[in-house]
Amino acid sequence: MDVVCENSIKKVVKEVEEIVGDKGLNCLINNAGINVLASLEEVTAETMLTIYETNTVAQLMVTKAFLPLLRKAAQLGTGMGCHRAAIINMSSLAASMQLVQANEMFLKVYPYRIAKTALNMITRCLAADLKSDGILCISLHPGWLQTDMGGNMAPMQVQEAIPGILSVLDRLGEKENGSFLDWQGETLPW
Amino acid sequence: MDVVCENSIKKVVKEVEEIVGDKGLNCLINNAGINVLASLEEVTAETMLTIYETNTVAQLMVTKAFLPLLRKAAQLGTGMGCHRAAIINMSSLAASMQLVQANEMFLKVYPYRIAKTALNMITRCLAADLKSDGILCISLHPGWLQTDMGGNMAPMQVQEAIPGILSVLDRLGEKENGSFLDWQGETLPW
Repeated sequence: MDVVCENSIKKVVKEVEEIVGDKGLNCLINNAGINVLASLEEVTAETMLTIYETNTVAQLMVTKAFLPLLRKAAQLGTGMGCHRAAIINMSSLAASMQLVQANEMFLKVYPYRIAKTALNMITRCLAADLKSDGILCISLHPGWLQTDMGGNMAPMQVQEAIPGILSVLDRLGEKENGSFLDWQGETLPW
Repeated sequence: MDVVCENSIKKVVKEVEEIVGDKGLNCLINNAGINVLASLEEVTAETMLTIYETNTVAQLMVTKAFLPLLRKAAQLGTGMGCHRAAIINMSSLAASMQLVQANEMFLKVYPYRIAKTALNMITRCLAADLKSDGILCISLHPGWLQTDMGGNMAPMQVQEAIPGILSVLDRLGEKENGSFLDWQGETLPW
């Protein structure tokens, strides 16, 4: 799916609808994201907008497109969590405003971390807005992983992080709605 | 100044340079901003990008353009604050992630509050990045004011808020670098 293309999103929603049918969608994981290296000296308006479009705006638009399916699933369940209906926004430790001082290496990725902070605000707004529908929303820092984006210096391989992430998702309940968690389930400061 | 136009920014920087000369610029207040009403149902990718460009990206670009003048002033002073060199990003209570639940009326301004949260992250990054230059950076919530944007329902007139704001700016020191304050100098949560 091309997350910045409305038609591409619509097509995928239709495909998912055909698969899940009347049961709706229980869990939407917004995992798409891009990065560029850009320090204060290097950052441009164009880069800021491109990264925001893919890492922040797209997550909101994809979520909006899947809302009817998430609401359908939520109507069939009780409580809150992935067993009913949940939106997981893949965020980053680099998005934590409180931890900026402690992570000066992240000052080389202005557009990325600013867009991820904005994504955390989307999580907070969705959590408040969709609570009455029984749909939970969190931001999740998956850890620094050896992916195309994470690179070789990352301390963890994807397969090491996945069991932890699945376990966190499995434990989600009303208490976690609107929170910012890492792959071990620890709360991160905004 | 048109804050989303590179040439317009350059022109104003040159004009300011001619006025301040070798003394440089002591205080940059990024006050430009726009708003549109957009709830979750109404928000579009286009509105998200337009508001981000004007309320977030422009502040970073204007700041970058004024950095040589701010650095010039910083070299002539000691300590931290508006007497030396400071960047004031006009933010909003609506940008506080922690206070989302308590401000449900703000759920009607998705693009605005998400962009202002991102602006707060810019404040944090600039505060960390420019500390060694002796340039301070804060986010300031000016209060809900009876302006074109604030509307008639706002509880305060502009002239009521200004003395408080000036007093806060006057008191700024190293302790406040990277903080989120309101017009009375109270710290707001991220």
